Amino acid sequence: MSGEADQLLEVSPETVRRVEALLAEGRTEELRALLASLSAAGQATVLEQVTDPERDALVALLKGELDPEAIVELDETVRDEVLERLDSKDIAAVAHELETDDAATLLEDLPEAERREVLAELPVDERVEIEAQLAYPEDSAARLMQRSLVKVPDRWTVGEVIDHCREASDLPDDVYDLFVVDADGRLAGTVKLGRMLRTKRPVPILDLVDPDIQSIPAGATRAEVARLFRDRDLVSCPVVNGERRLMGVIMIDDVVDVIDEEAGADILQLGGVGHDDMHASPVRTATMRAWWLTVNLATAIAASFVIGQFEGSIEKIVALAVLMPIVASMGGNAGTQTVTVAVRALAMGELTAANALRFVAKEATVGGLNGLLFAAIMAVAVVAWYGDWRLGAVIAAAMVCNLVAAALAGTLIPIGLQRAGIDPAVSSTVFLTTVTDVVGFLAFLGLATWFLL
Amino acid sequence: MSGEADQLLEVSPETVRRVEALLAEGRTEELRALLASLSAAGQATVLEQVTDPERDALVALLKGELDPEAIVELDETVRDEVLERLDSKDIAAVAHELETDDAATLLEDLPEAERREVLAELPVDERVEIEAQLAYPEDSAARLMQRSLVKVPDRWTVGEVIDHCREASDLPDDVYDLFVVDADGRLAGTVKLGRMLRTKRPVPILDLVDPDIQSIPAGATRAEVARLFRDRDLVSCPVVNGERRLMGVIMIDDVVDVIDEEAGADILQLGGVGHDDMHASPVRTATMRAWWLTVNLATAIAASFVIGQFEGSIEKIVALAVLMPIVASMGGNAGTQTVTVAVRALAMGELTAANALRFVAKEATVGGLNGLLFAAIMAVAVVAWYGDWRLGAVIAAAMVCNLVAAALAGTLIPIGLQRAGIDPAVSSTVFLTTVTDVVGFLAFLGLATWFLL
Repeated sequence: MSGEADQLLEVSPETVRRVEALLAEGRTEELRALLASLSAAGQATVLEQVTDPERDALVALLKGELDPEAIVELDETVRDEVLERLDSKDIAAVAHELETDDAATLLEDLPEAERREVLAELPVDERVEIEAQLAYPEDSAARLMQRSLVKVPDRWTVGEVIDHCREASDLPDDVYDLFVVDADGRLAGTVKLGRMLRTKRPVPILDLVDPDIQSIPAGATRAEVARLFRDRDLVSCPVVNGERRLMGVIMIDDVVDVIDEEAGADILQLGGVGHDDMHASPVRTATMRAWWLTVNLATAIAASFVIGQFEGSIEKIVALAVLMPIVASMGGNAGTQTVTVAVRALAMGELTAANALRFVAKEATVGGLNGLLFAAIMAVAVVAWYGDWRLGAVIAAAMVCNLVAAALAGTLIPIGLQRAGIDPAVSSTVFLTTVTDVVGFLAFLGLATWFLL
Repeated sequence: MSGEADQLLEVSPETVRRVEALLAEGRTEELRALLASLSAAGQATVLEQVTDPERDALVALLKGELDPEAIVELDETVRDEVLERLDSKDIAAVAHELETDDAATLLEDLPEAERREVLAELPVDERVEIEAQLAYPEDSAARLMQRSLVKVPDRWTVGEVIDHCREASDLPDDVYDLFVVDADGRLAGTVKLGRMLRTKRPVPILDLVDPDIQSIPAGATRAEVARLFRDRDLVSCPVVNGERRLMGVIMIDDVVDVIDEEAGADILQLGGVGHDDMHASPVRTATMRAWWLTVNLATAIAASFVIGQFEGSIEKIVALAVLMPIVASMGGNAGTQTVTVAVRALAMGELTAANALRFVAKEATVGGLNGLLFAAIMAVAVVAWYGDWRLGAVIAAAMVCNLVAAALAGTLIPIGLQRAGIDPAVSSTVFLTTVTDVVGFLAFLGLATWFLL
């Protein structure tokens, strides 16, 4: 990190330590001032990085002063803990300050009874909007949208729109696009603020509609929203219902959060972690991870069972026991490379029905090529090590078999899971290692039993 | 995918197949019309998904008509192939249409001689700007910025700014923020367009400066830029040099690309793939991946060497050979879970010096807890399978050892690599599996030799 760029890092480890020191020494006023000087994201980082008791103390001390956005930015586990320290009135005060989408995020995980209490504390119009938002599925575009937006009638001119903006007192600062609607509230199009600004006052606003900005149906998934923003380089996008009535707007910063979450979920799931568990307790983390380890144990026992069938061979040639993990491990690693490329390409929409066959054929070729390469290397190594060319030939043949099997499994498993509607990031690797372990041990020990005994 | 959301997918597999069919049948006009109807991202998707010869034919046919942005959006390997089909004049024509940052991206991978030819075709001012951009390191904020922006003097009023915007003919549509500079070109602050729009004409523009929008030093890294946009929910951000002179602006859509690339790189690197190789030839892909497999082969051979030390024990108790992969595999999987959480947390700035010790302690506890759980399961299974409680006790003890070792290695390796300035996503897993294989085999076979023989 360059020296001049250090300033970009708002909350350094030193900031966190300073908060901890001020808290421990009871220097409340300095603590208040320090927290107040941070952005919402900065406050969230501090709350995430201190210990649980410190966090409780900070929340008790500062609850009215925390930036409402900071609570939304918190990791889910930490947010739940913070909300437990707040009563319904406190939570309602926070929700009142937030956009509808953020307020819905805040309330969605509260127990039913408490959520009702919080909603009862809010003004009727806010309550209705939040309830409407919560009625949509968690993965939908509608849950990402905010309700505050600038909506203008399709018969206005640029001048009328500008005058309206000057007079309306409740316009947010972060408006980038205006939405033109007809008399029935149906979306007629989107106008970029920059475009409007450099147009003369008498021009009809409808003339400025940007044909590149589509609308998003309320039922679209989060992944579809992210894809659209990416492909069209959007900054905001209107959400419409089945009758094309304008319901709200999705902003790019919420889409960035979606992109981060989806990439993070793929990374964690490929690594056998179902959910971001960084902030969960050790017992909870251990329990969540144990499920995945149990599935892997079943795989490992299946592989052991294969080995068990060849106990007689291993007793006669103990070198088989020494060498067999190499064949299985190389298959597992080559297959993981393939699965990783496939899962990422599926997630980014780069691997589709149009090129799936070509992809499988290419990966099988790659598996064959590297199979031959490492077969040659291992054959030479085994002949040098054990002085037995037949053992070298057996490990070479097994290596080619397993790397080709790894390539086929590494492509067909994620593609098949995706077609079956199952997230390929979640379970591809466990099926893959089952294949590479079983094929690796079976090919090596089987060929050895056949040729060497 | 919901029915109504399908329309969001601009290029379906059917679109790609239709392009291929039109191309094969020589229906050029329909092909032109179809491609012209797609956005830049849509054209890029088509070019990525067809075969190499089809792509060459498409480029030869449509080169003047492709959206310049489409060429920038292409995957790097595909882009290089497309550029090879274009001569310097064609490339210069494309670069001329692009923002400076995109033009620099286009030219950066060209051979030196060709790049000079292309630059010679461009107007002097564009050439100078692109060369200035290319002089910055590839990972810097300066390479992400575009030069076209709206810059206004700090003594103007809102009215003067609006009049200036109306008169200037070359303003881009996607302006979201204005930049206020002093007489020396130093950045005085950023004003959001929405804020300006709802302010009366006589108000000095300086009064509207948004204190939340900082500036980015030209030398900041891409990761730092992404962090700042995320934390502050920015849509654009000014870039300044050491004297705070305004150099350009970074836009959110380029930051979204950075976020995608960094997440993609982490996913691929954790899977042992150094670079997105989806579009590379089989031989090139095989060569790139062979490096990683070679490192893994060394690890596997090291593990074999450990097993080799216990050949005598295995000859006497062949069950050891059957069971030993289970201990190694469970360690590898548990360690991968820990490494994954650590790498993601390091990338997102959630794991820092402030909480590293707590993280290691927590993961060690998790490793111990799951070690005990799976020790118990395996002890029961082994006693049931082999009827030997001493063998069960040995595998249980080895399991606990290996899962605790996996937790320690899974945290300390990525944290250590990060401190040493090495990307933890690249090499954490190989070090980890070395530890879990060696400890797994050593603990199990060592304890067995000690207690059972």
